[in-house]
Amino acid sequence: MTGAQREAAEPMFRKIAIFGVGLIGGSFALALKKAGAVAHIVGVGRSLRSLERAAELGIIDTFSTSPADAVAGADLVLIAAPVAQTGAILAAIRPHLQPGTVVTDAGSTKTDVVAAARAALGDKIACFVPGHPIAGREQNGPDAALVELYVGKKVVLAALPENDPADVERVAQAWRLCGAVIHALSAEEHDKVFAAVSHLPHLLAYALVDDIARKPHADLLFQYAASGFRDFTRIAGSSPEMWRDITLANQPAMLAELDAYLVQLGQLRTLLANRDGAAIEAVYANAQQARHEWISTIEAAEKQSRQGGD
Amino acid sequence: MTGAQREAAEPMFRKIAIFGVGLIGGSFALALKKAGAVAHIVGVGRSLRSLERAAELGIIDTFSTSPADAVAGADLVLIAAPVAQTGAILAAIRPHLQPGTVVTDAGSTKTDVVAAARAALGDKIACFVPGHPIAGREQNGPDAALVELYVGKKVVLAALPENDPADVERVAQAWRLCGAVIHALSAEEHDKVFAAVSHLPHLLAYALVDDIARKPHADLLFQYAASGFRDFTRIAGSSPEMWRDITLANQPAMLAELDAYLVQLGQLRTLLANRDGAAIEAVYANAQQARHEWISTIEAAEKQSRQGGD
Repeated sequence: MTGAQREAAEPMFRKIAIFGVGLIGGSFALALKKAGAVAHIVGVGRSLRSLERAAELGIIDTFSTSPADAVAGADLVLIAAPVAQTGAILAAIRPHLQPGTVVTDAGSTKTDVVAAARAALGDKIACFVPGHPIAGREQNGPDAALVELYVGKKVVLAALPENDPADVERVAQAWRLCGAVIHALSAEEHDKVFAAVSHLPHLLAYALVDDIARKPHADLLFQYAASGFRDFTRIAGSSPEMWRDITLANQPAMLAELDAYLVQLGQLRTLLANRDGAAIEAVYANAQQARHEWISTIEAAEKQSRQGGD
Repeated sequence: MTGAQREAAEPMFRKIAIFGVGLIGGSFALALKKAGAVAHIVGVGRSLRSLERAAELGIIDTFSTSPADAVAGADLVLIAAPVAQTGAILAAIRPHLQPGTVVTDAGSTKTDVVAAARAALGDKIACFVPGHPIAGREQNGPDAALVELYVGKKVVLAALPENDPADVERVAQAWRLCGAVIHALSAEEHDKVFAAVSHLPHLLAYALVDDIARKPHADLLFQYAASGFRDFTRIAGSSPEMWRDITLANQPAMLAELDAYLVQLGQLRTLLANRDGAAIEAVYANAQQARHEWISTIEAAEKQSRQGGD
């Protein structure tokens, strides 16, 4: 092997520290390893069993329960723990952050994460690039991690005014190496968008299943629930703890979306009480049409990305 | 071939007439043909193009636009047209119904169908056995028909007091030959159950997509909608005309379910406004647990039915 070849094989990251080695953090690790983009990955977490399992699965090279050891010499730190822990983790690593270390996160909400980061990092806030990979699943833990999880998926980066564009680009490159497509939104835009298309639907699905489960004839009802119900409520299979945190973290935008939806349901209730078939059909038809156009757009983009990848 | 063999090969039904040769009626026809259970299937419908296409696909043997011709000599008549047309179809065939012809339907609502059938058939009501195969899809038309559609699926029969048990059994046998499992509910029970687990979820999914599509920044929102949103709103891809009819047909039960859900959402709104994380998590956790148990029950039943079939 010549010196030039050895140099070409030098990975982009010498050391990456990942807080939370479950689905999100574990999949990030697997994808960067496959891309040959990292020399060493250290896992950090509250559960020793998860860390041991992640090491066993080859997701991480070593693990540590000491934030100081974990971030020492790291080019990149990913926080993929439950979103409510982000502030505490940032506060724990702050004293050990060296110049040249970029920190990012994978939280499903951004306004609260930015506020927690500012409080925890103070004058070191510039090193923190907020992020959100759009690739949820119901499964959790290291065993759920998939090397392909992010291929073709969106990652939103909500860069701060303090961020060095080179640091934002470094985070973007890591996600691109996982196969993801980078999008930019402000933290506030991000939270409004996801309240509408993700957080409210989760609340609605949980609410419906809870409503049915509490009825005296719940067993009879579940007996006849079919594939439509199964898909509609799939997201109600997600972690209650994680979604409690997201709900509270994005409370203002969630309240606004829920109120708009309650107005919509109130109007539909009136149409139903009045047996106004034409108006009900107009709502249904508008929804069907909008969804059809959305699905067509997605499928066209998927097709293009497959062709581009060949 | 001996006489005995010829006799053994005699199909259960000499002639079946099917009103509506789309997904539901077409799949019924394909499955009974595959089972060798029918000598002749005649399709009836408003759209000549659909009838021609169904004949082309081998779903039906002949077609007719005359109800009199279609039901002459039929052992079984299936009405698989939009539910609002059931009364008119029954009224049209009533004068031509012969003793020995059993009529059934595939409508998603039953109380209104029974009322329409009583009005249309009068003293011939005993020949009508109300039914509902639980096997919807978004696709419609003859091209959507699948020979395997009903395998392992439930069919609810809401038998009338006037029905001859032998006629109910004949309808049940036809569905069993399609691979379905027969369940019995009264028309009223049926409508309450399906308002909760099917009709309300459709209304909720249509309402959410319509709500988002009407926002000024709808394009931005749809851009970030992901797989959770896709599954949650899959049923909003269904036919608006069909679901308008179901909504109106099952209006009393739909209103009751919608009101219960609005109470539930109002309570969740209060918890959200108060940032009551523990109470929100309790709702989410109860829903997740109930859904998990439901899915486990389904999967155990599917496994058992696969083993039973081997």
